Amino acid sequence: MGRTTERRRVLRLREQQGSYRPDALAAEEPLEIRINGEALTVTMRTPGHDFDLVAGFLVGEGLAASSEDLTALRYCAGTDADGLQTYNVIDASLRDGAAVPASAHRNLLTSSACGLCGRESVDAIRMRVPHDLAADGLRVSPDTLYGLPDALRAAQKVFDSTGGLHAAGLFTADGELLCLREDVGRHNAVDKVVGWALREGALPLTGHLLMVSGRASFELTQKAAMAGIPLLAAVSAPSSLAVDLASELGLTLVGFLRGRSANVYAGAQRVALA
Amino acid sequence: MGRTTERRRVLRLREQQGSYRPDALAAEEPLEIRINGEALTVTMRTPGHDFDLVAGFLVGEGLAASSEDLTALRYCAGTDADGLQTYNVIDASLRDGAAVPASAHRNLLTSSACGLCGRESVDAIRMRVPHDLAADGLRVSPDTLYGLPDALRAAQKVFDSTGGLHAAGLFTADGELLCLREDVGRHNAVDKVVGWALREGALPLTGHLLMVSGRASFELTQKAAMAGIPLLAAVSAPSSLAVDLASELGLTLVGFLRGRSANVYAGAQRVALA
Repeated sequence: MGRTTERRRVLRLREQQGSYRPDALAAEEPLEIRINGEALTVTMRTPGHDFDLVAGFLVGEGLAASSEDLTALRYCAGTDADGLQTYNVIDASLRDGAAVPASAHRNLLTSSACGLCGRESVDAIRMRVPHDLAADGLRVSPDTLYGLPDALRAAQKVFDSTGGLHAAGLFTADGELLCLREDVGRHNAVDKVVGWALREGALPLTGHLLMVSGRASFELTQKAAMAGIPLLAAVSAPSSLAVDLASELGLTLVGFLRGRSANVYAGAQRVALA
Repeated sequence: MGRTTERRRVLRLREQQGSYRPDALAAEEPLEIRINGEALTVTMRTPGHDFDLVAGFLVGEGLAASSEDLTALRYCAGTDADGLQTYNVIDASLRDGAAVPASAHRNLLTSSACGLCGRESVDAIRMRVPHDLAADGLRVSPDTLYGLPDALRAAQKVFDSTGGLHAAGLFTADGELLCLREDVGRHNAVDKVVGWALREGALPLTGHLLMVSGRASFELTQKAAMAGIPLLAAVSAPSSLAVDLASELGLTLVGFLRGRSANVYAGAQRVALA
């Protein structure tokens, strides 16, 4: 349980030569998420901070908006071929009256990067965001933005050993890192950060910044919005649909945040230029 | 339909200055996949090569193994708010007798990076691979491997303009590029390559190499195996589960393929050292 990295023997090629040596890999294992005992989904994830992952996933799906909505999280019995507990099944108890989606009555399986499972049709990929992001008064300086990637990387311990993990970091408006989470799936890293905030009683994350190590997809943008985060920054490119969603919701979307430069694709009024 | 990139106005930050300019973004739109008229899944994808995407997805799910299994692919009626055809719904007709999974009777939604939707439980994430990969006699030289990333990048036209697309390339044992596909989702890029091969009547892809621009996850490794590909190479790191699956199936897994070096995580007997 909770192994973030695993070691394997690897043949290291250099030019025409090869030599064997041990190598650290990002761990990837399935996690089944149940709600009130019923299977909801299975996601591929890096073990560790599993309760945060489940809590954040439920926020993204619109099933929990505060810590009161989530009355319990526990590992279910689940054993491998040797009879050992796998810690790969978690049951979430929602408070009475919380809406359990129809999809909770199906078994869905998501990948390590899947943030949209369970919607009913093409028309329904959009969640109803319960926050007025456009009204968020956050303002950030370019210097605050430029400081985010280094702060993320400095805190990202596992990446350095495996090169295989995505990171997501939650920051204050002044660029102070509050929470960093890593995962083989970039959606999981965001879920873990949002779930941490929910369990800390900190939702919605008004006035905060979220930084991700990869690209900004539609799903990541929607996850930020569902947590009430007014600014999402990414090291790499956003997709067209991510930009359109951010524009519509009033979320600030920053991409290609590298060195002393960045692109602001939506919500540029929050960036305080000299 | 088929727009691989879209243009948006962006605020470009440099130090303390900002200026507006147009920018090209990787397009991302939902695609609903139906089988014999019933909704199976919705994936976020970059429009273009949609029939390849659907065909390859079906191979990965074990629903099609040759072009005979797939009798028709067509766009369904689907219109946006202005009454225009969206080209975002495709119906696949499987030949009589082809097994339609129970999941075809549910509505599943996958993300742009989701390759595992629809499995029933943690125990069932593993597909039954209908190929004996361990028996594949492929042998490659280090130089052939070292040539793959440059060949992929040279053929990857859209990446250069957006920085936002994953690529997958199918190569012969001599390193000749046969097919390249791009997508915001790395699983989709692989599905598009495999679907191209199915529609060309080229499955299983015995003796071929698959190269991906990102990391090697469990799902990508499984998709390669389902297409009968004996070697998967990635620019970045594999996960622990990808290595374990490759070892078990007899698939050669290469990671960190950059410059004149690489790591071979499984199936190293296929690499012909000097």
